[in-house]
Amino acid sequence: MVDSVRLDELNWLEFAARVAAGAPVLLPLGSTEQHGPHLPLNVDVTLPTGVCERVAKEVGGLVAPTLAYGCKSMPRSGGGEHFPGTLSLDAHTFALIIRDVIRNLGRQGVRRLVLVNGHYENMGPSIEGLDLGMRELRRDGIYDMEVMRLEYWDFAQRATLDTLFPDGFPGIDLEHASLLETSLMLMLRPDLVEMEKVPDDGPATFPPYDKFPLPEDFGLPHSGVLAVATGSTAEKGELLMDDYVTRISEAIRKEFRL
Amino acid sequence: MVDSVRLDELNWLEFAARVAAGAPVLLPLGSTEQHGPHLPLNVDVTLPTGVCERVAKEVGGLVAPTLAYGCKSMPRSGGGEHFPGTLSLDAHTFALIIRDVIRNLGRQGVRRLVLVNGHYENMGPSIEGLDLGMRELRRDGIYDMEVMRLEYWDFAQRATLDTLFPDGFPGIDLEHASLLETSLMLMLRPDLVEMEKVPDDGPATFPPYDKFPLPEDFGLPHSGVLAVATGSTAEKGELLMDDYVTRISEAIRKEFRL
Amino acid sequence: MVDSVRLDELNWLEFAARVAAGAPVLLPLGSTEQHGPHLPLNVDVTLPTGVCERVAKEVGGLVAPTLAYGCKSMPRSGGGEHFPGTLSLDAHTFALIIRDVIRNLGRQGVRRLVLVNGHYENMGPSIEGLDLGMRELRRDGIYDMEVMRLEYWDFAQRATLDTLFPDGFPGIDLEHASLLETSLMLMLRPDLVEMEKVPDDGPATFPPYDKFPLPEDFGLPHSGVLAVATGSTAEKGELLMDDYVTRISEAIRKEFRL
Amino acid sequence: MVDSVRLDELNWLEFAARVAAGAPVLLPLGSTEQHGPHLPLNVDVTLPTGVCERVAKEVGGLVAPTLAYGCKSMPRSGGGEHFPGTLSLDAHTFALIIRDVIRNLGRQGVRRLVLVNGHYENMGPSIEGLDLGMRELRRDGIYDMEVMRLEYWDFAQRATLDTLFPDGFPGIDLEHASLLETSLMLMLRPDLVEMEKVPDDGPATFPPYDKFPLPEDFGLPHSGVLAVATGSTAEKGELLMDDYVTRISEAIRKEFRL
Amino acid sequence: MVDSVRLDELNWLEFAARVAAGAPVLLPLGSTEQHGPHLPLNVDVTLPTGVCERVAKEVGGLVAPTLAYGCKSMPRSGGGEHFPGTLSLDAHTFALIIRDVIRNLGRQGVRRLVLVNGHYENMGPSIEGLDLGMRELRRDGIYDMEVMRLEYWDFAQRATLDTLFPDGFPGIDLEHASLLETSLMLMLRPDLVEMEKVPDDGPATFPPYDKFPLPEDFGLPHSGVLAVATGSTAEKGELLMDDYVTRISEAIRKEFRL
Amino acid sequence: MVDSVRLDELNWLEFAARVAAGAPVLLPLGSTEQHGPHLPLNVDVTLPTGVCERVAKEVGGLVAPTLAYGCKSMPRSGGGEHFPGTLSLDAHTFALIIRDVIRNLGRQGVRRLVLVNGHYENMGPSIEGLDLGMRELRRDGIYDMEVMRLEYWDFAQRATLDTLFPDGFPGIDLEHASLLETSLMLMLRPDLVEMEKVPDDGPATFPPYDKFPLPEDFGLPHSGVLAVATGSTAEKGELLMDDYVTRISEAIRKEFRL
Repeated sequence: MVDSVRLDELNWLEFAARVAAGAPVLLPLGSTEQHGPHLPLNVDVTLPTGVCERVAKEVGGLVAPTLAYGCKSMPRSGGGEHFPGTLSLDAHTFALIIRDVIRNLGRQGVRRLVLVNGHYENMGPSIEGLDLGMRELRRDGIYDMEVMRLEYWDFAQRATLDTLFPDGFPGIDLEHASLLETSLMLMLRPDLVEMEKVPDDGPATFPPYDKFPLPEDFGLPHSGVLAVATGSTAEKGELLMDDYVTRISEAIRKEFRL
Repeated sequence: MVDSVRLDELNWLEFAARVAAGAPVLLPLGSTEQHGPHLPLNVDVTLPTGVCERVAKEVGGLVAPTLAYGCKSMPRSGGGEHFPGTLSLDAHTFALIIRDVIRNLGRQGVRRLVLVNGHYENMGPSIEGLDLGMRELRRDGIYDMEVMRLEYWDFAQRATLDTLFPDGFPGIDLEHASLLETSLMLMLRPDLVEMEKVPDDGPATFPPYDKFPLPEDFGLPHSGVLAVATGSTAEKGELLMDDYVTRISEAIRKEFRL
Repeated sequence: MVDSVRLDELNWLEFAARVAAGAPVLLPLGSTEQHGPHLPLNVDVTLPTGVCERVAKEVGGLVAPTLAYGCKSMPRSGGGEHFPGTLSLDAHTFALIIRDVIRNLGRQGVRRLVLVNGHYENMGPSIEGLDLGMRELRRDGIYDMEVMRLEYWDFAQRATLDTLFPDGFPGIDLEHASLLETSLMLMLRPDLVEMEKVPDDGPATFPPYDKFPLPEDFGLPHSGVLAVATGSTAEKGELLMDDYVTRISEAIRKEFRL
Repeated sequence: MVDSVRLDELNWLEFAARVAAGAPVLLPLGSTEQHGPHLPLNVDVTLPTGVCERVAKEVGGLVAPTLAYGCKSMPRSGGGEHFPGTLSLDAHTFALIIRDVIRNLGRQGVRRLVLVNGHYENMGPSIEGLDLGMRELRRDGIYDMEVMRLEYWDFAQRATLDTLFPDGFPGIDLEHASLLETSLMLMLRPDLVEMEKVPDDGPATFPPYDKFPLPEDFGLPHSGVLAVATGSTAEKGELLMDDYVTRISEAIRKEFRL
Repeated sequence: MVDSVRLDELNWLEFAARVAAGAPVLLPLGSTEQHGPHLPLNVDVTLPTGVCERVAKEVGGLVAPTLAYGCKSMPRSGGGEHFPGTLSLDAHTFALIIRDVIRNLGRQGVRRLVLVNGHYENMGPSIEGLDLGMRELRRDGIYDMEVMRLEYWDFAQRATLDTLFPDGFPGIDLEHASLLETSLMLMLRPDLVEMEKVPDDGPATFPPYDKFPLPEDFGLPHSGVLAVATGSTAEKGELLMDDYVTRISEAIRKEFRL
Repeated sequence: MVDSVRLDELNWLEFAARVAAGAPVLLPLGSTEQHGPHLPLNVDVTLPTGVCERVAKEVGGLVAPTLAYGCKSMPRSGGGEHFPGTLSLDAHTFALIIRDVIRNLGRQGVRRLVLVNGHYENMGPSIEGLDLGMRELRRDGIYDMEVMRLEYWDFAQRATLDTLFPDGFPGIDLEHASLLETSLMLMLRPDLVEMEKVPDDGPATFPPYDKFPLPEDFGLPHSGVLAVATGSTAEKGELLMDDYVTRISEAIRKEFRL
């Protein structure tokens, strides 16, 4: 029998058995998006998938295939759609995917689901898709599906951030392709990180509004790195990952009574 | 510099450079679907991805992230949606994903795209999404995008099929979780194949119509394997893969003048 | 009282009585599409309608108004959208029509429905519409609607095809505006067939993929006739029609216990 | 060569030639809807189609296949959706059909189109579909498409109505399955009219509002005939048809400079 | 405690109490649309809101926030979309708003709802949205929601119109920015009416059809006033308002058994 | 001539003149949502409208009618949809409204637009609608439309917040129906504020994730007030409003070169 936390590496009989036994399913929500000159386009796929696989081991869960295309990138959070390699979906499309996957998981008997988001702009449409999916399930007579939805980065402890940022944590808003994501990539996929290409044209100096079309002088670093990635290490990535895995597992156990 | 045919393992500058140089992009279209008791749910992801990576090496192309959720499975081609682990999207959702990805690839400067389908029921909505995407690109003033769309299994040579099926090729229609797919999985992901679980409750004896809801006596093997998987080997998988890679590469070179 | 198998030639009281008595409803799915220089644009409307009217007489059924606009035509199956007179709908539009008609037939008390498709490209979206319609009916508390869906051409007997093609049946794939359709039109609407215009620029020599935009040298005959129409006769049409009517009626009686 | 005003009875070369010569296309918009115990469900298909065929002869036009399923019926104009045999589409679906057909006619070179509506509730969504279709055509670079949209019954002369209703014309609002429609059906399809079943439970006494769900005492005659059909004759139908054909043809000639 | 008929001026506890006590909710449907040189763009917001507030007082109801953007304006009823300041929604968008608001009101416990329309072109899509909303409520297990839908102008008494138009009422069709609307605005918002700017380029002389794109010589007054506004007074507005309030209140009491 | 910053209080000629002169249009994005026992449901309408009217005076702009129905409320930001009186739209509906309004403003000649958001959950769908609208405008040949999008609360100065929260600003996340919103309402609509009803069951103690369905023990105060409203005064509201008006006006002048 195949031993895997990846739902799609099981056969249908194994999947059915695991679901019948109450295994929670984790669905990582990613994107294909620029992450500066030193990181690949798959950061937002790699990180939530890595978190989910570790959490699944902790809680006896299964990881569904990651959504590799996310909702459109905005300059103030991800650099924006004009960066080559940022390949996004409309919010409506993204929400429909979530709706369909939830409807089908529910129909298959899954009653515990966790959406683990790894791309800021997925937040809104993942809520929308979740609401649409739950609405359909209720109309199909399924009332006992429970779903959690979270951004994995919200599970870092304050103390960890203080350790990582001895001069003070600048806030999650500019943490795109910066120290947190770079450290986590060094831990998970060091073969895809090129620390020598870490830029120093940041941090971003955005005004408190969006502008369409994007002005030349909007405060966006040309590299696409919104803050600072210097000093990233795999060890820092492990510190963060520990927080994520421990605390997300805890939350899942609490909410799903495991 | 990262050496990969996977688009999402490049950084945005590398991606931009490759696109500017005219690299074709291959987009594998998969699904998460039952494939009998001996194969995992990810067969339709693994096979077109495997084909694309080999073709990309041949033609200097890049492989975009595979769509892991496909269009709804039908009993006569994939066993149907009632099998646990078959997690599908509505056709409209699937078409919108294709539309959005094409629009964004076009906007990013990609002018040569190949949709490589690995799941029968994706055929209709991938055509729809392609038509919608091209329509949008034209309206955005992009007229020179060229797109090919194919089912990889159509590229096996008659002679190869005759070799693999000395008693006569039963036709592609029932080739779900059967000899071709099992052999290809033995080649690509032997760790996920359990040959000892190959069932013998086939082949399917479908009538020439669909019925909703699915009748008990529809002729569908309980295992979900539509034909016969016995005799599958990695070598057979390699024979097939050779055909696919050689002939798809040839078609791409011809159409894209490479 | 009006004596007709056409649902729309009854008044509402007659319709209600027939439905209450369990009459199955047949819905022909057609298209307005080029069929070469010797056939009119309405071939895909005329043929499934003709089949349905004959089957309805056999099984005591009613024929709903034919959908005269089908899903977009592809070069490899119908010549493609660039042919003048090919007037198609988006797949989403087509699926919504099917969904709405099924929802309303179900609401009206119809419990036995047969979708009889006469245009290849309608296959995918008719499945989609059927799934959407059945989903809505279940949510409206209607669980006992039964629907069959078929392509009429799948009901020709092997023996009949052998008789019609003494040199071997080339396969249904290229049978667009060719011997089968032309013979059936000669039987049903000889006034609309001009045998002297039958072209000889075929058969099509397509590669095993789609290409957008369509290349000049794609192997598509300029006439729009994919194979060969020479030798078509009304008698051959009757042979085929006999098969269709007999075997579709049989299938309906079996599935609907008539 | 086939001599027909029906677009779909031509082959694609004839269609192309007619379009190139500037022939206007008429698209009848119908519905499948109850029309009392004396008329069939296809009144709203038969009448606008009959008008279009006669107008097409006058102006050298072509009649596209009639839309046989219309937008949902309301009690105050058509009796409502609860009548058996009233099979309607959602307004959005109906509008998308119009949009798609216009887009494709425009793409095919048609520059003069007339939507001839025969079902009151199609009015709103036919305007919507027309606006959506024209919007798409402009974005596809087609700016010279001209479209007229009309309800055929608006073309009766005051004098004709005075002749038909010597006691005063009660207004078009209740003219559902009543004298005008019955007389026109007697002219066009007398085989489908059963004058002996003309009811006398009207006229309707609606309040000036809609109510959902429909109350028992809403003033709707049980027969579904909103006013009075007694006294209908084929001659009256011809008087009306003369008006429609003459005056619609005149309008078309004026607007399209024919 | 806040004393207001405006639903949105209550707090959630007051709203909950009023709904629990059976208060009907009135939803005014407006638009932002040209109304000649003498009236502001908000006529279609001001009038149905004014009607609703007065009716709500009569029947103990609550007025929900007015929809300020309506469905697209047509030349024959509102002058058309080409007038500056006419800011409309697609019919589909408008219907979705109605659907969502109804679904949420129903979910909140509201069981008596009145849609009070003040913009002609909202008629079709408000019916569509109402049907979609009721459909969803039924699927959510809510079967006892009752909804009325009306155009306020249909509640003027014949006698009142005869008083206002001593030379005969020209019909509601051209009553855009004309005597009725101007008189009502003089009553409700005299500060926004400039009687000295009342134009005299009317009345409109439309043909009985729509034409896209709009021809120069379509009979549309340049001012956007379809008939005549001269002679409008606040007193006439009050006469009309009395009719609307009295008779709409009566209808509501009857239908909702108040 | 009417003197108003409200676009809808002008007539179409005045609107046209203002637009031709380059006046920016401000569109307030609100919602109808619970705001505790001391505030009305219209807080998210009143505040951005109040901000816009003041900014419009500063920059010579026009205020378009506020969107009174917003995107669905979430427990962690607005209490959630289960609160009576929270009447929301689906994200897709909300985005379509924005798209349509932008398309029409663009078509009318407006080239400077500011979306001023007053409801947290509108953020995602307002971006989506803006992107869709701009996409349509480009396809309609309009490339010079400039749009800003902002949340008004992001324009408070740090110093102001320090003054208002001498014990430290707890962060904007819980500022729902709390000190900032209550103070602003005391300034703008004191008649709708009932300070004696300010609750003390907060602040919220949410976990860092969403849960569907909402658990009983989620940390949400029963009052719907997420933080603390005690100490709110109109003076504090004015301090905030000054910041908003001054700094938003500044940003508009900079971006639109006024």
